[in-house]
Amino acid sequence: MATATPRPLGAFSDLTSELGICFGGDYNPEQWPREVWQEDAELMVGAGVNLVTVGVFSWARLEPSPGDYDFAWLDEVLDLLHAHGIAVDLATPTASPPPWLGILHPETLPVNPDGVRLAAGSRNQFTPASQVYRERALAIATAMAKRYAAHPAVRMWHVGNEFGQIDFGDEAARDFRLWLRERHGTIDALNDAWGTVVWAQRYRDFDEIVPPRRMPYLVNPAQSLDFRRYTSWALQRVFAEQRDAIRAAGAAQPVTTNFMGFEPLTDLWEWADEVDVVADDQYPDHASPTVSSDIALVQDLMRSLGDGRPWVLMEQAISATSWRPHNLPKSAERARLDSLQAVARGADAICFFQWRQARTGAERFHSAMLPHAGADTEVFRTTCALGADMRRLRPVVGGRVAASVALLFDWPSRWAAEEPGRPTERLRTLEQVARWHRALWRRGIAVDLVRPGADLSAYRTVLVPHTYIVETDAAAALRAAVEGGASLVVGPFSGVADGNAGILTGRSPVLLRDLVGVSGEEWVGLPDAPTPLAMESAWEAAPDTAEATVLGERLRADGAEVLARFASGHLAGAPAITRHRVGEGTAWYLGAVVSDDALTAVLDDALDASEVTGVLPDRVLPDGVEAVQRGAALFLLNHGDEPRHLTVPGARRDLLSDADVEGRLELAPGAAMVLIERHAE
Amino acid sequence: MATATPRPLGAFSDLTSELGICFGGDYNPEQWPREVWQEDAELMVGAGVNLVTVGVFSWARLEPSPGDYDFAWLDEVLDLLHAHGIAVDLATPTASPPPWLGILHPETLPVNPDGVRLAAGSRNQFTPASQVYRERALAIATAMAKRYAAHPAVRMWHVGNEFGQIDFGDEAARDFRLWLRERHGTIDALNDAWGTVVWAQRYRDFDEIVPPRRMPYLVNPAQSLDFRRYTSWALQRVFAEQRDAIRAAGAAQPVTTNFMGFEPLTDLWEWADEVDVVADDQYPDHASPTVSSDIALVQDLMRSLGDGRPWVLMEQAISATSWRPHNLPKSAERARLDSLQAVARGADAICFFQWRQARTGAERFHSAMLPHAGADTEVFRTTCALGADMRRLRPVVGGRVAASVALLFDWPSRWAAEEPGRPTERLRTLEQVARWHRALWRRGIAVDLVRPGADLSAYRTVLVPHTYIVETDAAAALRAAVEGGASLVVGPFSGVADGNAGILTGRSPVLLRDLVGVSGEEWVGLPDAPTPLAMESAWEAAPDTAEATVLGERLRADGAEVLARFASGHLAGAPAITRHRVGEGTAWYLGAVVSDDALTAVLDDALDASEVTGVLPDRVLPDGVEAVQRGAALFLLNHGDEPRHLTVPGARRDLLSDADVEGRLELAPGAAMVLIERHAE
Amino acid sequence: MATATPRPLGAFSDLTSELGICFGGDYNPEQWPREVWQEDAELMVGAGVNLVTVGVFSWARLEPSPGDYDFAWLDEVLDLLHAHGIAVDLATPTASPPPWLGILHPETLPVNPDGVRLAAGSRNQFTPASQVYRERALAIATAMAKRYAAHPAVRMWHVGNEFGQIDFGDEAARDFRLWLRERHGTIDALNDAWGTVVWAQRYRDFDEIVPPRRMPYLVNPAQSLDFRRYTSWALQRVFAEQRDAIRAAGAAQPVTTNFMGFEPLTDLWEWADEVDVVADDQYPDHASPTVSSDIALVQDLMRSLGDGRPWVLMEQAISATSWRPHNLPKSAERARLDSLQAVARGADAICFFQWRQARTGAERFHSAMLPHAGADTEVFRTTCALGADMRRLRPVVGGRVAASVALLFDWPSRWAAEEPGRPTERLRTLEQVARWHRALWRRGIAVDLVRPGADLSAYRTVLVPHTYIVETDAAAALRAAVEGGASLVVGPFSGVADGNAGILTGRSPVLLRDLVGVSGEEWVGLPDAPTPLAMESAWEAAPDTAEATVLGERLRADGAEVLARFASGHLAGAPAITRHRVGEGTAWYLGAVVSDDALTAVLDDALDASEVTGVLPDRVLPDGVEAVQRGAALFLLNHGDEPRHLTVPGARRDLLSDADVEGRLELAPGAAMVLIERHAE
Repeated sequence: MATATPRPLGAFSDLTSELGICFGGDYNPEQWPREVWQEDAELMVGAGVNLVTVGVFSWARLEPSPGDYDFAWLDEVLDLLHAHGIAVDLATPTASPPPWLGILHPETLPVNPDGVRLAAGSRNQFTPASQVYRERALAIATAMAKRYAAHPAVRMWHVGNEFGQIDFGDEAARDFRLWLRERHGTIDALNDAWGTVVWAQRYRDFDEIVPPRRMPYLVNPAQSLDFRRYTSWALQRVFAEQRDAIRAAGAAQPVTTNFMGFEPLTDLWEWADEVDVVADDQYPDHASPTVSSDIALVQDLMRSLGDGRPWVLMEQAISATSWRPHNLPKSAERARLDSLQAVARGADAICFFQWRQARTGAERFHSAMLPHAGADTEVFRTTCALGADMRRLRPVVGGRVAASVALLFDWPSRWAAEEPGRPTERLRTLEQVARWHRALWRRGIAVDLVRPGADLSAYRTVLVPHTYIVETDAAAALRAAVEGGASLVVGPFSGVADGNAGILTGRSPVLLRDLVGVSGEEWVGLPDAPTPLAMESAWEAAPDTAEATVLGERLRADGAEVLARFASGHLAGAPAITRHRVGEGTAWYLGAVVSDDALTAVLDDALDASEVTGVLPDRVLPDGVEAVQRGAALFLLNHGDEPRHLTVPGARRDLLSDADVEGRLELAPGAAMVLIERHAE
Repeated sequence: MATATPRPLGAFSDLTSELGICFGGDYNPEQWPREVWQEDAELMVGAGVNLVTVGVFSWARLEPSPGDYDFAWLDEVLDLLHAHGIAVDLATPTASPPPWLGILHPETLPVNPDGVRLAAGSRNQFTPASQVYRERALAIATAMAKRYAAHPAVRMWHVGNEFGQIDFGDEAARDFRLWLRERHGTIDALNDAWGTVVWAQRYRDFDEIVPPRRMPYLVNPAQSLDFRRYTSWALQRVFAEQRDAIRAAGAAQPVTTNFMGFEPLTDLWEWADEVDVVADDQYPDHASPTVSSDIALVQDLMRSLGDGRPWVLMEQAISATSWRPHNLPKSAERARLDSLQAVARGADAICFFQWRQARTGAERFHSAMLPHAGADTEVFRTTCALGADMRRLRPVVGGRVAASVALLFDWPSRWAAEEPGRPTERLRTLEQVARWHRALWRRGIAVDLVRPGADLSAYRTVLVPHTYIVETDAAAALRAAVEGGASLVVGPFSGVADGNAGILTGRSPVLLRDLVGVSGEEWVGLPDAPTPLAMESAWEAAPDTAEATVLGERLRADGAEVLARFASGHLAGAPAITRHRVGEGTAWYLGAVVSDDALTAVLDDALDASEVTGVLPDRVLPDGVEAVQRGAALFLLNHGDEPRHLTVPGARRDLLSDADVEGRLELAPGAAMVLIERHAE
Repeated sequence: MATATPRPLGAFSDLTSELGICFGGDYNPEQWPREVWQEDAELMVGAGVNLVTVGVFSWARLEPSPGDYDFAWLDEVLDLLHAHGIAVDLATPTASPPPWLGILHPETLPVNPDGVRLAAGSRNQFTPASQVYRERALAIATAMAKRYAAHPAVRMWHVGNEFGQIDFGDEAARDFRLWLRERHGTIDALNDAWGTVVWAQRYRDFDEIVPPRRMPYLVNPAQSLDFRRYTSWALQRVFAEQRDAIRAAGAAQPVTTNFMGFEPLTDLWEWADEVDVVADDQYPDHASPTVSSDIALVQDLMRSLGDGRPWVLMEQAISATSWRPHNLPKSAERARLDSLQAVARGADAICFFQWRQARTGAERFHSAMLPHAGADTEVFRTTCALGADMRRLRPVVGGRVAASVALLFDWPSRWAAEEPGRPTERLRTLEQVARWHRALWRRGIAVDLVRPGADLSAYRTVLVPHTYIVETDAAAALRAAVEGGASLVVGPFSGVADGNAGILTGRSPVLLRDLVGVSGEEWVGLPDAPTPLAMESAWEAAPDTAEATVLGERLRADGAEVLARFASGHLAGAPAITRHRVGEGTAWYLGAVVSDDALTAVLDDALDASEVTGVLPDRVLPDGVEAVQRGAALFLLNHGDEPRHLTVPGARRDLLSDADVEGRLELAPGAAMVLIERHAE
C-alpha cells in the first residue's frame, strides 16, 4: 500500500462515522409538486436512504431572473429532509445555467471546433473560460453557501456536475494564451516546446495562438496537448472558485464534485487534491464482457486519487441508463454487486442518479431508485434491499485496501499518445491499462494507480503498461524502486516523449533504457495476423505460445536477457520480451503488445519475484469471482452465471447474511459475501 | 371501411370521369427547345398520356428577374398540350426559387442546426419561415393562377413540390416563438409542457427560445417535438397560402401537392384536409425484400388520408432512381406491378417523374418515360404498354377499398418515440407498423390507417403496433371499439407519453391499462440473443415457439389472461402476451417485440375473434401474391419469381387481358390480373 | 511509344548527366541546431546522397515578421551542402505560411463548404484565391530567387508543396466568377453549359454564382465540375507565378513542384507543361494486395505527363508513414523494390521525405532516412544500401520506356463521372483504370497514359476503361487509331457526357457508337450477385465463364459482332461484349464491368490483334514479378513472397550485383535485377 501523507478528511469521515455507509442519490424536488416531497421523504426513510444530493439542476429555479434568488422552496426541502434524518449533499447548480444567461451573455456559451456557438436547450451550455459565467456561478454559489452553511441537513457540498466542458471560442483563446504565458514564460520558449519550427508554425506573440480549431490537416500535437491541459485547468478553476466561496461563507462541510472515471477532459491527478473527498459517477456498460474488471479499475483509480481514503460513489444507475443506443437493465443481483464492488474497493457512500425518475427532459428513461410506476415495483424493492445491505456493512466504514502493486497512469501521456499521426491508432492507453489490471484482478491482487514521478517505495511490483511521456522524475522513481528490490514491467511505446510531446531522440526508451537493459530504434504497426514469438530457454516460466499484435519495437538487448523474440515478419529475430536485473530488483520490457498468455506469464514472473500474492490462497480465482480485502473484511463477489467454489482461511462471518462461514464455500451466480474473521468482531 | 364524412372532391373525380385513370408525368418543356415540344406532344398521345404536371421547376424561367414575368412560353406549351388532348396539372414553381432570391434576400435561405446558411445551386433553398419567400412565392402563384385559371388545359393545380424543408435560423426562431405562443398561451404553460424544470431550462419569455440547434448534449424532447410540429405547420402554411391565392384568382380545379409517404417532416393527418385530392411520390427500394408490402402500406396511408377517396400517384420512376448509392432498374413487369398496385389500393392517377429524361442537372440519370436514347427503347415501350393497361382499367375508376381493420399511426408519436435518450434505438415505429401491416397483407386483408382519437366504430379489428403518445380521446375511442365488439391488439411501448412527450406516471400504459388488463413498471432493452417465451395453456392457438427481442416490459396481469411469459432473462416469469375480454370485444397486449410466429398468431386470433377475413378464401396467400378488392375489381399481383396458383370464386373476366377466368388460375412471375365478375359488367 | 514533340528539358538532364541517378530527400535543417548540420552533411555523403530539397516549410524562419527576411542560416546551409558536393532543390516555402499571415490577413485562410474559416496550427492554411497570399508568396519566392539564383549548390527549384488546397469562401467566389467569365463568356452561355434550367438555377449575372457550398440537396454537377477545374487552375496559377518570379530573377535551373499522383484536386494534364521536370510524391499502401501494380500505374502517369522524359520521385517513405490509422513499415527489400520500380518506369531521381526524422510536429512518426535513434539503425543501413544501388544504376540515366499501348485517363471525366446522382457509386474511374492497367502489368507490357484528344498514332492498342466525357476531338483520335490498324477497347459508361457534364442524348456512346458498332439505351446498376454472361461462338478465345457486376448497359449490336450476352437479369439477352472491324483495326466494347477472366480475354484479343507483346517471352509473368524495359536495361522485380523463375534472352549483366546472367534465372522473394546485354556495355 502506498504510504500517503495523512491529511484531514474534512467532515466526510465524521459523516460516515455517524451514518455508516451513506446511501441515497440525486434528489430533484423542484421537478415535483410539494405534496410529493412528503411522500419522497417517507419512502426514503423506508428505503434506508441517509444522504441525498440536492440542487444540481436547480439554477433556473433558484435564480429565475438575474440576481433574484428564490430559496424558499429549498429551505422547505432541506427542513423536511432534516426532519426525516436525511443528510444533504448540497450542490451549486452551476452545471446548467438558465437560458437567460446565454441570452444576456452569449459569450458564456461554448463554441465547438467549427466555430459553432452551442445553444441552450440541453445542459452544460457554458464555457469555463467565460468571466461572466464564472462570476454568475460564483454569485449563486456564494448566496447558497451563506444561506445554508449552518443548516443542519447540509453535510456535504457538491460543486457543479460532471466537469467536462470544452470551448474553442474567442474568450477561450484569450484565456488559453494567459495560461500558455504562465506555463511557457516567453513565446520563444513556447515555440521551442511546441516545435513550431516544423511546418512554419512559429508564433511571434502569444496573441497569435488559437485553440486547435478546425484546420486543414493534422494539428501540432504539442498544441493539442497544452489545450487539453488548459481545459482541465480551466474547469478546475471553476470548481475551485466555487469551493473557495463556500469556504469563505463559513461552511465547514467537505466539498467535492463528481468525477467521471477516466473521462478524457480532466486530469484527475491535478484535481485530486482540490476535493475534500473523491466522488465518482459510474455508468459501466454491462454489455461488455470485461465490465467487472473495468469497473474495478475505475474504483481503484478513485481510491488512489484519494491516497487510499474512502470515496463516494456519487452516481450510478439502479437499472438501465438511457443514453446508449440500446440500454440493458441491471438485475437486482447486478445492482447489488455493482454497489458492493465499490464498497470493497473503498467507497463509503453508495448513491444513485436519481431518487425519483424524471417525467420530462432528456433523461426521462434513465432508471431511478423510485421509478415512474411508483413504489410497488421490482426496482424500488431493489432500492430497499440495497439500503438494508448497506446498513449491514457499517463495520466496513473507514477501512483501507492495502496494495503492493502500483500501476502507472496519467492523462497527459494518454492524450499525447493518442494524438493523430502515430504508428497505429490501434494502441489505446486505457485498453492496455485495463488488460494489465485485469490480469491482477483475476488473481485477487490489489493495485493502486500512481502518477508518474510519484514515490514508489511502498510498492513491491510496478507496472507501466503504456506511459508515453516519461520525464526524469518518473524515470528516477522507477529506477529507485527496482534498485530497492521491486519488480518493474514496462510495456511498449512507453517513455517515448517529453512533457511537451516531443520525441526523445536516441535509442528508446531514452530515460529508461539503462534500467530495462534494452534499446529500440523503430516503433512499427504489426500486420493484422498476429506475429508469433519464439521463446528463449532463459525464460523458465515461458508460456507454450505467444504472439504479438498492434505495435512492435525493433529492440537490441543492451544487458538484458532476451526471453522471447519475434519469430517472423519485419522484426524477425529482434527481442520482444526481456528481463534485466538491476540492484535488488528486476525490470521486464515488452517490445510489443503481446497476447494474454505472454502478458500473464511476465506479470506472474514479476509478482513472484517480488513475492506479491492475492488475497486468497488460489493463484487464480474462479472465473468471474472477485476477491478484495478491505480492512478486516474480505469481499467475495461472483459476477458470473455459474456457481463457484472457494476456500477461505479461518472462521468467518458474512456481514450480509449474518451466517457463519468456514473452509470451502459456494458462491451462487450473482452472490456476494463480506466476510470478517469471527474473532475479529 | 371507415365511415368518412363525405365531402366534395372538387373536380378530381370530374377529371377521371372524363379521362379514366390519369396517366402521365412531370413535364419540363423549359429544358428543351421548342421543336422538341411538338415531338413530345405526339409521343405522349401515342403513349396514352392524358395528364402532365408542368412548371414545377420553372420559377427562374417564369420570373427571370424579380417581378418580370415571362409566361409566353408557358402559354404556348399549354395550348399545344390542350390541342393534343392532354390535361395539365399546373404547378406553382415555388419549390426551387431562382438564385436571385437568395442573393437579394439571404434570409430566404435555410440555416442548418450548425448555423450554416445553405447556398443556392441545388433546390429547396428556401425556409418556410421567410416572410419574403412567402410573399414572392405567393406573387408568382397569384400571377399564374390569374393567367391560367380558365385555361382549358389546366385541370389540376400543384403547389410547390415535396414539402420537407427545415430551418434553424433566426427568422425560423421568431416564427417558432409565435407558433409556441399560439400553442401554449403563456410561458409558464410552455415551461410546464416542456418540463423545463429538468436541467434548469426554464424560460422567462418566449423570446429566449431557439430551435433545437447544435447543443452540448441531448435536447429537451418536448422542444424537439414542438419544433417538428411547427415545421410541419410552417410548410403547410406555405402550401395553404398559395392554394388560397389560386382559389382567390377564381380557379376551380382541384389543388394538391405531392406528399412523400411517411416522410418525417410533415404530419400528413394535419395536411390531409388541406388538399383537394391526396397525391404522393413513391420511390420504393426494390433491393429490399419487403418492398411490396412496404409500398402497400404507403398506398393504404394515402387512401386513408383521403378518407378512402381515390388518390394520385404523382411521381414514381419508370425504371431506376439515381439518388441511391446503387440504383437497380425496374423491369417492365416490375414497373407495371408498381402501378397496378397503386390502382388496386385506390389510385386513380398513375404518373411518373418525368416525361423526358433530363440532359443536365443532378437528376440526369433518374429514369424517365422517354429516355435519353429516345423512343426506340425498352423503357419507352414500357411507358406505352402501361398507358394501354391504364386505359383498360377505366371500369375501376372511383372504386373504393373496404377495410375492416384499422391501424393506428401518427407523426407526433413517431417523432417523440424516436427522440434520443430512450430505452433502445432499435425500436422504430415505422418498422413495427410495417411488420404488423405485412402480416395482414399476406392474408389479403385490407387495412386503413387511422389517427389516434379518430372514431373507430366502422372497424372490427384495431391494431396499435406502437403508438407512443396516447391521449384521453384516443384511449376512449379504443375502449369504445372493444366494448362494441372489436378486437384490439396493442404493441409494446405504446401509451407511454402525453401530447408533450411527458411520461405518464404510474403503471403503464396509463390510459389503457384498464382496457388491456395488464400494467407495467419498466421498459427495458432486451439482449441481442432473442429471449424465448413460454406459452401458457390458456392460449389455444399458440405457436410452437416464440421469442422476444429489442424491447420488453415488466408486466403484471391485472385481470387479463396470460398467454405467454418470458422464459428467462431479466423479465423471466413476467407476462409477455395477454388477452382481456372487455364488453363485447377483446384486447390483446404484447409486452415485447415478439417474433413473427407469435405476432401472426396473435393477429390471427384477433381477426378470427372479430370475423375479419381476406379477399380470397385462402387464409394465407401464396408467397409474393397480393390480392386487393377495389370496388367490383379483384386485383391479383404476383410480386415473386415463381408462378403461383389461386382459386377465385365465381366467373370472372380479366380487364388487363380481356380473358375469362374461373376457379383455379395461375399467375406467372410478375403477372397481374384485374378480375371483375362477369355478370357485373 | 508516343511520338512527343521534343522540348528542352531545362537543366534536369544536365543534373543527372553530372550526378547520375539523384538520391536524397527533404532536408529541414531549421529543425536542428547548427552542430547537427555538419553531422548531417557527413552522413549524407556516406549514404550517397547527392540531392536534397531544402526550405519547404521554412517560411516562418525565413520571414519571421512580414517583410523581415533572414537568409543567413540558409546561406550557411547551402554553403555547407555545396562544400560536401550535395546539390540542392531549393523550395519556395509557400505551402505553409507563418501564423502572422492569417492573423494579419484572415482572408488568406481557406474556408470549407460549411463556411468555417480554417485555423493556423497545421499546414496548408492558405487559399489559392487570395490576392494577399499570392503577393506574399511571390515576394518571398522572388527574394529567394534573387539571392540564390547563382548559388552553385542550387540545381533545381521546388515551388510550394503538394498543391491540393481548396476554398469555398468569398474571395474564392469572386475569383471563381472571373474564371467562369473567361471560360463561358456570357452568363447565357454559362446557363446553357450548366443546364441551369433544371431546378430553376438560372443565373442573371456571374455575381450570383457561389462555389458549391453546403446546399440543401445535390449540387448541379456542371457547377461542381467547373469548380474543380477552377480550383486546379487557381493552384496552378500560384505555382506559375512563383516559377515566373524565379525565372525573372535570372535562375536557369529547372523548376518543378511535387505532384501527388492521381490526387483529385489537380488536373495534371493541365499542369504537366508548366513544370520543367515532372516530380511526384508516392505513399502507396503496402497493406493493399494490388499495391505493386497500383504504384506502377502512378509511375506510368508521371512518365506520360512528361512525354516520356525522366522524372523525379520527390518523396516517399523509407519505412512507415504515420498518417494512416495503422502504418505498416517497409522492409529493406520493399524499400529497395519501390525505388527500383520508379527507376524502371522512368525516374532519374529517388528521394524521400525526409532526411532526419522530426522530433516534433504532426509528422514525428513518419519514417526518415536517418531515424530518431540515429545512424546505427536498420533504417539508416537501408538508406546507405539504396544510395549504393543508385550509384550502380548510372547507366540507366536518361533511358526511355517504349510503350505501344495507350490508356485514356483524364481528370474532368473522373470528376464528372463521380458526381452524386449517378447509376451507381460502385463504379470508380480509378479502380477501373487500375484493373485494366494491372492486366497489362501482369504481362510485362508497357502502357502510356494519354489525355483524351491526344494523337494516338504511335500506339497499336488503345484502352478506354472508363472515360465519361468524350468530345469530338477524342472521338476522332480514337477512330483514326482504329482505322489505322490499332485495337481499341472501350469500357462501360464511357462517352456519356460532353465537356460540361451534360448527357449526350441519343443512343450511347453517342460519339463512339459508329466506331464500336453498338448503341445503348440504359445504364443500370447490377444486382449484388454477379450476373453470368453467355459466350457466343463468334468469340474464338472466350473464357470458360464470365460475369458482370456493378453497372451494365442495355446495348443493341449495330454492326458489331456479339461476343457475349447477359445470361439473365434485367439485361438478359442483351449484348455485353462486342467486336467491330473498322478500317484496319478492331474495336471491342464492354457493356458492363466484367469479371477478370473476361476482361483479360478481351484485352489479350486486342493485344494479339495488334501484335503487342510483353518484354519477356512469357505471355504472363510469374505471380508478383514485374518486368520493364527502360532503354537498354531490363528491370526484373519480384514483389512476391516466393522465389520465381524466368528466362531472359541473350547474355546479360546485372547492374545491381555485377553478376553475369543468362537463360533461366531465379529471383528470390524481394529480389531485383537490372539486366543489360553484355555486348551493350
